[in-house]
Amino acid sequence: MSIVTANLAISLDGFAAGPGQDMDHPFGTGAEALTEWMFQTDQPGREKDKQILADVHANTGAHIMGRNMFGPGRGAWDLDWTGWWGPEPPYHAPVFVLTHHDREPVVMQGGTTFTFVTGGIESALEQAREAATNKDIEIAGGAAAVRQYLGAGLLDELVLHLVPAVLGSGERLLDGLNGIALEPVETIASPTVTHLRYRVRR
Amino acid sequence: MSIVTANLAISLDGFAAGPGQDMDHPFGTGAEALTEWMFQTDQPGREKDKQILADVHANTGAHIMGRNMFGPGRGAWDLDWTGWWGPEPPYHAPVFVLTHHDREPVVMQGGTTFTFVTGGIESALEQAREAATNKDIEIAGGAAAVRQYLGAGLLDELVLHLVPAVLGSGERLLDGLNGIALEPVETIASPTVTHLRYRVRR
Repeated sequence: MSIVTANLAISLDGFAAGPGQDMDHPFGTGAEALTEWMFQTDQPGREKDKQILADVHANTGAHIMGRNMFGPGRGAWDLDWTGWWGPEPPYHAPVFVLTHHDREPVVMQGGTTFTFVTGGIESALEQAREAATNKDIEIAGGAAAVRQYLGAGLLDELVLHLVPAVLGSGERLLDGLNGIALEPVETIASPTVTHLRYRVRR
Repeated sequence: MSIVTANLAISLDGFAAGPGQDMDHPFGTGAEALTEWMFQTDQPGREKDKQILADVHANTGAHIMGRNMFGPGRGAWDLDWTGWWGPEPPYHAPVFVLTHHDREPVVMQGGTTFTFVTGGIESALEQAREAATNKDIEIAGGAAAVRQYLGAGLLDELVLHLVPAVLGSGERLLDGLNGIALEPVETIASPTVTHLRYRVRR
């Protein structure tokens, strides 16, 4: 069955990004610990980290992301901006970008198409479902987009990569979601990061 | 080797207690999820929860706790108050209570003695080390006491019982500890709560 899933790195004190997100710091500043393990998965002992990063996307048919994940710009579009990822983004699938500003779809190399959705999170989900056929839909981020889907009861699964660092400031993943209940369904321990797969309870 | 350790239940958004701690709500209100699993360990499927709660105290020779964990009173002592736990507290070992107000030691049934320490966290640790001989010292709580020892570099190990609930308010365990780095050394997954054992990096 097709599910709506998200996976994010989170610090022990609950931050999914540091403060001061900008062009050079897509995850904010002081938050290197959240992402550096993702680039070290070829080091000895990191096999489980590598495996989970492959697994979380193995069945993904479409992605949804917030505008801030697509780029640092705000307001009307700079049409030269086509994402952080260069000519061939790592998605290789349709990507729906949540925005308040219309823009024509952008076709990239390798199967990624960015489609800009101004109708809200439910509209984006509907379009992603259609594009994904029977595969899963990933809410790719950022934290705000995941929080919106979680708060609206539209997320089926949440995978947290729990990084053993304390950031102290930034964007908290779960702010404003009191009462959300999750059920642990899988835990993968690596020496670096603990990967926690939760089913969202209705 | 004797270590200084602590174990606490923590919500997914980082809270170790809810708001509004008082006589009837030692963990605050709205925070039942943090503790209810501890009283359900005889239910089917909860074997791992039961085991970890036994294991974390298996080698404890002395405990240290903050005054707020010992009781709801503030200021000068009400000498009739001898803790939340009745005539035979579950510690069965020396317990050192951090306070600003002198009080004579209180000897309880079953091997628990409450000794009141006004000289600060290092003095309490010194006394606990002596009392524990070669066994471990547990910072029993609350969150503020654990935070102080962690911040002062005096904690060797931290066990977090990660409860899959979002509380939204209360006392955050790791506030003010930015930069503290932990190393995952053991992860025990149960269907209820994920138990994470960390070594504190120096």
